[in-house]
Amino acid sequence: MDKAAFYRLSYGLYVVTSRKDDQINGQIANTASQVTSEPPTVAVSINKQNLTHEYIEASRKFTVSIIGKSTPMQFIGHFGFKCGRDIDKFANIRFKLGETGVPIVLDHTIAYIEAEVVNQLDCGTHTIFVGRVRDCGVLDSSDEPMTYAYYQEVKRGKAPKTAPTYQEAPKKAEKVDKYTCSVCGYIYDPEKGDPDSGIRSGTKFEDLPADWTCPVCGADKSKFEKEG
Amino acid sequence: MDKAAFYRLSYGLYVVTSRKDDQINGQIANTASQVTSEPPTVAVSINKQNLTHEYIEASRKFTVSIIGKSTPMQFIGHFGFKCGRDIDKFANIRFKLGETGVPIVLDHTIAYIEAEVVNQLDCGTHTIFVGRVRDCGVLDSSDEPMTYAYYQEVKRGKAPKTAPTYQEAPKKAEKVDKYTCSVCGYIYDPEKGDPDSGIRSGTKFEDLPADWTCPVCGADKSKFEKEG
Repeated sequence: MDKAAFYRLSYGLYVVTSRKDDQINGQIANTASQVTSEPPTVAVSINKQNLTHEYIEASRKFTVSIIGKSTPMQFIGHFGFKCGRDIDKFANIRFKLGETGVPIVLDHTIAYIEAEVVNQLDCGTHTIFVGRVRDCGVLDSSDEPMTYAYYQEVKRGKAPKTAPTYQEAPKKAEKVDKYTCSVCGYIYDPEKGDPDSGIRSGTKFEDLPADWTCPVCGADKSKFEKEG
Repeated sequence: MDKAAFYRLSYGLYVVTSRKDDQINGQIANTASQVTSEPPTVAVSINKQNLTHEYIEASRKFTVSIIGKSTPMQFIGHFGFKCGRDIDKFANIRFKLGETGVPIVLDHTIAYIEAEVVNQLDCGTHTIFVGRVRDCGVLDSSDEPMTYAYYQEVKRGKAPKTAPTYQEAPKKAEKVDKYTCSVCGYIYDPEKGDPDSGIRSGTKFEDLPADWTCPVCGADKSKFEKEG
């Protein structure tokens, strides 16, 4: 069984949000798909450990904010590698409440779908929620949708341990000094730099500013380990 | 509700196959996703009208053949717009039987996943089948996965009426004489030609060979109607 096959499945990248009473939360998901067209329904797959799962179970509502290809890594890290139990993820995020009262992220969102859960399937670590679409719209026609492949290959992003697609990182024998974030698995590659943070390609890890932080999860330099 | 939002969800393109006793069949699907990593499970969404649905219900097994970006339209049309009740879809297709006895398509497949159904969810016109992965592998590392966006934008493919993503085609006022296939919705655009069939860009519909057929569904020229 060569699990590399799983990496050939294609996904997008979304912020799935929900609410529980007056609390709102959101998380990154790569699985959101239309299930039926008449009536329109969409499915998302959510890890049971995640706060958003708890909120969807409580309110039976969720929205999918489809983010654009130009979305910076920091934004994805904010929703994907932080936990809503520790911080208010919406504190510095532009959003609006949709028809169902669930937040629709406006930053970097090119289209959104609001749904009410009509069905769900227990899949062990994850639940598939199927929602009847209540509203949807396009916010930005100029950017393409971010795909999971683009996030991984171009942006060099990783999956958190709670993602359906999480795999242990393979050990590589590299001659250049790359550094791996021990929190989220992001690899700093001097050849690429960190353009989202203004770090030019060719910048050694040692030469990064002292206040530079992981573009995915926000961990500081001390959390990085040399690959080898 | 602007359903154009649905088009911003990202998908791949797959041949999902199954068997019933000695009969085998396969169909195109754009929804296949990993649901859990421990144990590895994958989900597919299949229309109840399709023969493959009947076969999966009978054998509780399916495979996902992930096709490459270079896959010709004829191949997609063969599995996507023909019905296994009318023809033997595997008659001229290279395939092997996997560990579970279900066919894995070898033509144009870059990776495959074999699964046994452990769970399913009735979603109206479609069923979501969740399968425990029994085997998987990579067959071709040189081609990228075909995405649904690439199929639609570059290959100009359409969704059949049984697809989750089917929408009525919007009417467009075009000045060039494009022709639409009344069977599958494929649009012949003289500006693009039909490179997969050796038709150069700039070839008018009227100048296509008499034996030219729709690259998606195989319908002959008489089934085409001028757009307008």
